[in-house]
Amino acid sequence: MPELRKDPVIGRWVIISTERGRRPSDFVHIREQKRGGFCPFCPGNEDKTPPEIFAVRPSGSSPNTPGWSLRVVPNKYPALRVEGELNRRGEGIYDMMNGIGAHEVIIETPDHQKTLGDLDTTVIQETFKVFRERILDLRKDTRLKYVMVFKNHGAEAGASLEHSHSQLIATPIIPKTVIEEMEGARKYFGFKERCIYCDIIRQELKDGLRLVYEEEQFLAIEPFAPRFPFETWILPKRHASHFEASTDEILRHLALTLKVVLQKINRALQDPPYNFVLHTSPMQEDHLDYYHWHIEFMPKLTRVAGFEWGTGFYINPTRPEDAAKYLGEIVV
Amino acid sequence: MPELRKDPVIGRWVIISTERGRRPSDFVHIREQKRGGFCPFCPGNEDKTPPEIFAVRPSGSSPNTPGWSLRVVPNKYPALRVEGELNRRGEGIYDMMNGIGAHEVIIETPDHQKTLGDLDTTVIQETFKVFRERILDLRKDTRLKYVMVFKNHGAEAGASLEHSHSQLIATPIIPKTVIEEMEGARKYFGFKERCIYCDIIRQELKDGLRLVYEEEQFLAIEPFAPRFPFETWILPKRHASHFEASTDEILRHLALTLKVVLQKINRALQDPPYNFVLHTSPMQEDHLDYYHWHIEFMPKLTRVAGFEWGTGFYINPTRPEDAAKYLGEIVV
Repeated sequence: MPELRKDPVIGRWVIISTERGRRPSDFVHIREQKRGGFCPFCPGNEDKTPPEIFAVRPSGSSPNTPGWSLRVVPNKYPALRVEGELNRRGEGIYDMMNGIGAHEVIIETPDHQKTLGDLDTTVIQETFKVFRERILDLRKDTRLKYVMVFKNHGAEAGASLEHSHSQLIATPIIPKTVIEEMEGARKYFGFKERCIYCDIIRQELKDGLRLVYEEEQFLAIEPFAPRFPFETWILPKRHASHFEASTDEILRHLALTLKVVLQKINRALQDPPYNFVLHTSPMQEDHLDYYHWHIEFMPKLTRVAGFEWGTGFYINPTRPEDAAKYLGEIVV
Repeated sequence: MPELRKDPVIGRWVIISTERGRRPSDFVHIREQKRGGFCPFCPGNEDKTPPEIFAVRPSGSSPNTPGWSLRVVPNKYPALRVEGELNRRGEGIYDMMNGIGAHEVIIETPDHQKTLGDLDTTVIQETFKVFRERILDLRKDTRLKYVMVFKNHGAEAGASLEHSHSQLIATPIIPKTVIEEMEGARKYFGFKERCIYCDIIRQELKDGLRLVYEEEQFLAIEPFAPRFPFETWILPKRHASHFEASTDEILRHLALTLKVVLQKINRALQDPPYNFVLHTSPMQEDHLDYYHWHIEFMPKLTRVAGFEWGTGFYINPTRPEDAAKYLGEIVV
């Protein structure tokens, strides 16, 4: 059973994921690991993953057989598990709880060779619809407070398998970074009576200095204080606090915008490793005036080092205005 | 001139380091970079770094010539610069200030082949004495609020040069992570009237479950909620809030403890890349009852991915109790 443990000073929770319990020799092995070989996400290998939770497949075809175009399965080495009691407890001055939660993998395509950026807009839209359905389903379990949806692309961005996939982790507590973001947005709203993200959107559209792409429903910008070079945020123009309340039409526009961003980034930086993370409101909350869901997209071009670990400060060698200019000039 | 910019939602400052201003093609180049070749930190190449700030060298020898055993120079591509005015200002809803600060490199040995773990305890002690002297010197500039001392070892831990060195960055604001740590420790003190780190030390010595090494003045433990496998903290047993108040004798014990930890880690994990970060009180503060300086040592064995970036949560596949057992069993 995985455990959640809290740092007693800084209040940061960590997941001690005993499923993958690793000895020193395992890490030496990881560093030497090569790509290629057997892929558990390819059609025909359905029995190499835990049984599917959901799939887009021809009607009449059996679960866990080939023919699917998109597949959701539990992570084989889950960071958290659905079964059991939350059981908060102490150990001297320390606090911990059982690692209750969910950890799922969304396999976006049966084609091992394709990356997310290669997929048709309709397929990317399908992926977003599945994110929405999974959040709506997990919300029913009131022990779960937050669902983090993310994608790691490329080994340097933490992807352990090459075949294109995203993941979601549902946690029994609202993560620290999310709390900080909600708190910052709430304070701004208290002061201004306006959503801070709506204000960011207005200023970025007016200035145009950090604008990468704009369409009817979404815009893509380089944020004013990016942690990483070419960090790009995608925001819906209209205020909305919960991603999972999006209509199919909104998700079509989101897919279109993400595809444009991916094409520009891949062209400019030659298919870099990247992470993207969906930032949305805690799922047990109702509509919020002060929070605005969005996607943060981060190419992994620089390495995070001692200074960043110690300070929470980031050193970024590329001005977002320059990055926006490079990306803006790429026609896709 | 570098800029400090503040994320308007989360309040996180980033350094936009225009010194290294990088275009898309530069990043493609970085990913293909090979090691080896010319080293600006080797004896004979003193003119390839900015002029030295400090050096341990035979009396009578000239600055910026060979013969030194330890050398401190400004970073050639500084994240922050000493010259200029702080100049806080706004840009619409955004906040920023000039990138005032200091960024120095401590070259620990003239020998290109040696890593910190290979050096004699007396040489490691010398490095710590230099950290102390640099903090005491930078403290005189009251614009500077914090000095972060850290080391990146190995390319995967963010080291851009192979030759063994540490760095320090002095910042005009107290970094977010430091504020959180101070705040957490202050709250605990308010509640218990005891230093939380002193309580951690007492519990770890009593349990022995996460103890890696203990000597007269220091102990090395795996923390209860480590972000990374084999993350190891070194703490002085006697309460002390400021590293720079340490005596030579204390620094000798610290060097001894770090050497033991490095030998154990290198033996267990075959010379992994790592970062270490000195956590100490803001230098303009007087002695604090509630904060306790220490070193956080982090081997880089796993990759930080989307989930961590989005949540501030970490997934660690190795229980600290297991890591302590492996490291404890290694005799050095």
